[in-house]
Amino acid sequence: MSENRICAVRLDDAAGAMIILDQTRLPGEVVYLTLTAQEEIWDAIYRLKVRGAPAIGIAAAYGVYLAARAIGARDYEGFAAEFKKAKEYLASSRPTAVNLFWALDRMERRMEAEKARPVEEIKASLREEADAICREDEEVCRAIGENGLALLKPGMGLMTHCNAGAIATARYGTALAPMYLGQERGYGFKVFADETRPLLQGSRLTAWELHEAGIDVTVCCDGMCSNVMKNGWVNAVLVGCDRVAANGDAANKIGTSTLSIVARHYGVPFYVCAPTSTIDMACATGSDIHIELRKPEEITEMWFEKPMAPAGVKAYNPAFDVTDAEFITAIITEKGVVYPPFADNLAKIMKK
Amino acid sequence: MSENRICAVRLDDAAGAMIILDQTRLPGEVVYLTLTAQEEIWDAIYRLKVRGAPAIGIAAAYGVYLAARAIGARDYEGFAAEFKKAKEYLASSRPTAVNLFWALDRMERRMEAEKARPVEEIKASLREEADAICREDEEVCRAIGENGLALLKPGMGLMTHCNAGAIATARYGTALAPMYLGQERGYGFKVFADETRPLLQGSRLTAWELHEAGIDVTVCCDGMCSNVMKNGWVNAVLVGCDRVAANGDAANKIGTSTLSIVARHYGVPFYVCAPTSTIDMACATGSDIHIELRKPEEITEMWFEKPMAPAGVKAYNPAFDVTDAEFITAIITEKGVVYPPFADNLAKIMKK
Repeated sequence: MSENRICAVRLDDAAGAMIILDQTRLPGEVVYLTLTAQEEIWDAIYRLKVRGAPAIGIAAAYGVYLAARAIGARDYEGFAAEFKKAKEYLASSRPTAVNLFWALDRMERRMEAEKARPVEEIKASLREEADAICREDEEVCRAIGENGLALLKPGMGLMTHCNAGAIATARYGTALAPMYLGQERGYGFKVFADETRPLLQGSRLTAWELHEAGIDVTVCCDGMCSNVMKNGWVNAVLVGCDRVAANGDAANKIGTSTLSIVARHYGVPFYVCAPTSTIDMACATGSDIHIELRKPEEITEMWFEKPMAPAGVKAYNPAFDVTDAEFITAIITEKGVVYPPFADNLAKIMKK
Repeated sequence: MSENRICAVRLDDAAGAMIILDQTRLPGEVVYLTLTAQEEIWDAIYRLKVRGAPAIGIAAAYGVYLAARAIGARDYEGFAAEFKKAKEYLASSRPTAVNLFWALDRMERRMEAEKARPVEEIKASLREEADAICREDEEVCRAIGENGLALLKPGMGLMTHCNAGAIATARYGTALAPMYLGQERGYGFKVFADETRPLLQGSRLTAWELHEAGIDVTVCCDGMCSNVMKNGWVNAVLVGCDRVAANGDAANKIGTSTLSIVARHYGVPFYVCAPTSTIDMACATGSDIHIELRKPEEITEMWFEKPMAPAGVKAYNPAFDVTDAEFITAIITEKGVVYPPFADNLAKIMKK
C-alpha cells in the first residue's frame, strides 16, 4: 500500500489512524484525511467522504480495529463489551450499507474465534482480519479485471456509467479494473464516462481516477450514448452493479438500463462486472429488487447556484434501475465470465 | 395577445417597444424586459434571452419593424437604405439562426413590394407583416397541437425532451402544443420532462411553462427514461425537431435519439412534431445533417458552483443527434400526420 497511487482507505497503524481520500471534494481538490477518533471515522462514512460498498466495508473494518486497539480492558469480557459498542456505533453511520454490516460482523466473528487468546493477540488478529478484507477485495477486483480484459482488444473504445472504480474498492474497482490492467499493458483504451446524473459520479469520480492513471477519458452526458455509439466509438460497455438476481437481471445506478438498450441496438457488447458477493440467488428476478427513491432536490437543486427547476415542480429520482438480463452480454465475476442462460450459469458459478 | 398568459415576444406599438420574457432568468425569476433600442434587441437575441427558432424570427421581425418605424427619411431610397442597415445589424446577432434570416428577408421583401407607397404606409405594412409572421406561427403550432391531440387519449402519460414549447414559438409550441390543447379540454395528461443535459432546457423551461399552465409535470434525468417507461407511466413521447430529412430522419436536441430507441423497446409511440418549414426535402438522410459541436465547459462547468470534472479532462458535447426514421412512429405537421414510409409520405405532404 506504500506506492504512490490513489487509495480510498488505508491504515497507518503506527499513527493509530486511518487515511482516506475525501471523495466529496473531488474533482476540485485531492485531499487525504487522517482520521483517529471514532467520531471522525463515523462522520467520513456518513458524509460519503468514503463511498462504494467495498471501500465502506474496508473503512469499517479498519475503523473497528482502531477502536479495538485503544480498548484498555485486559480481560476478554471487558474487551468484547467495548468492541461491540464500537461496532454498533460504526454500523449506525449508513443504515442500508450491506458491506458495512458484513465487514463489522466478520470482524466480530474473528474476535470471538480468538477469545481464548490474550487481548493483545486478539487485537493483532483483528488487524489481520481487516487487512484480509482489504486484500481479498483487491484480489477480487484484480480477477474481475483479468477476466474482463480477456474479452477486450487493444485500442478499443469503452463506455462506463457511474463509478465502479478504484476509489470505491480496495484497488482497481470492478468495471474499471479491466481498464487499469489494460493501461498497465499498453492497451490504449479510449474511455467514455457518462456523467451520471443526478450525482455526477461519472464526471466527478470516474473521469478523475482514470485521468489520474493516464487513461484517455472523455466525459459525455447520459443521453448522448446513442450519438457516441452511432459514431462507432464504443466497442464495449462495462458497468458495475449493486445486486444481480438469479436470472441475471442487474440493479445498478440509474441510467444503466437505458444504456443497455441503446448498446443492444448498436450491437455493442454490454458487460456487468460483479463480485460474486453481489449475486443474490435468493432474489429471483429484478422485480424483486427494491429501488430506493431519493429526494427530488438532488435533481432540481444540488450542484447548482440557482434552482434548476421551478419551485413546486415534482422530480422523480430513483437511485437505481434494473437492467434486464436479455440486454446483458455477460456477467464478469472474479470466478469467471458468466454467459446466458444466466439462471443456469449463475447457479453453477456460485457453487464453485 | 392581451390575455394573461406566457408570451415569449410581443409588440407594444404605442410604446415603440418589444416586450420579451427573459428566458435566461427562468425558472428562478419571471422577468419581462421592455426593449426599445436596437442594441437591446440585438443583445436579447445574442444572449438567448429570447430563444427557439420561431420566437427568434418573431423578435427579429418586430425588431426590424421598430427600427423602420424610427427612420426619419421621407423617400423610399433613403428609407430602404436605413432599413437594410437595421436588418443587417439584427441578422448579426446569431449567425446560424435560419429563422432569423428568414424573417428578416420576408420583412425586406414586403418593404420592396410596397415601394411605390408613401413611407408611412410602408411602415404600417411592415407592422402587418411582422404580425402575420407571429400569427402564422401560432396557427401552425395550434394545427400541430390539434393533429397531435387526435392521437392521444385523456389521462395519458407523456414524455418530452428539451423545450419545444410556448416560449420557443408564438404560442403553444410544437411538441407541447397537444399538451396545452389537452389541458384546455380537461385531458389530465401527466407529463415527464427530461431535464435535457447539458443546458437543462427541460427542467428550466419545459417544466416551468407546463407548471405555469397547471399541467401535471415531473422532471426526470435523461438516463431515467428506461425506468420511467418500464413503470408503464409513458403512453407516448412527443419531441420537437430542428430539421427533418427527406427519409424521415430527424435532428433534434442531443438525447432524443437515445429516447427514441428506448421508447421502441417499450412499445411507446414516438412522435416528432415538425412544422413543414423544418422538413428539408433537399437533405436526403440524417447523415447529411451537420451536427454542431459545442464547448465542453457546458458539461464540465456551466451551472455548477465548482468544476464538475477534473481539469484537463475532455468532454464531448454535440448539440443535436439524429433520430433514425425507423424509430419514429409519425411526424406531426400542421398539414397532417405523416406515417411511414416517410420518403413517400413526406414528399406528398410537402406538395399540399
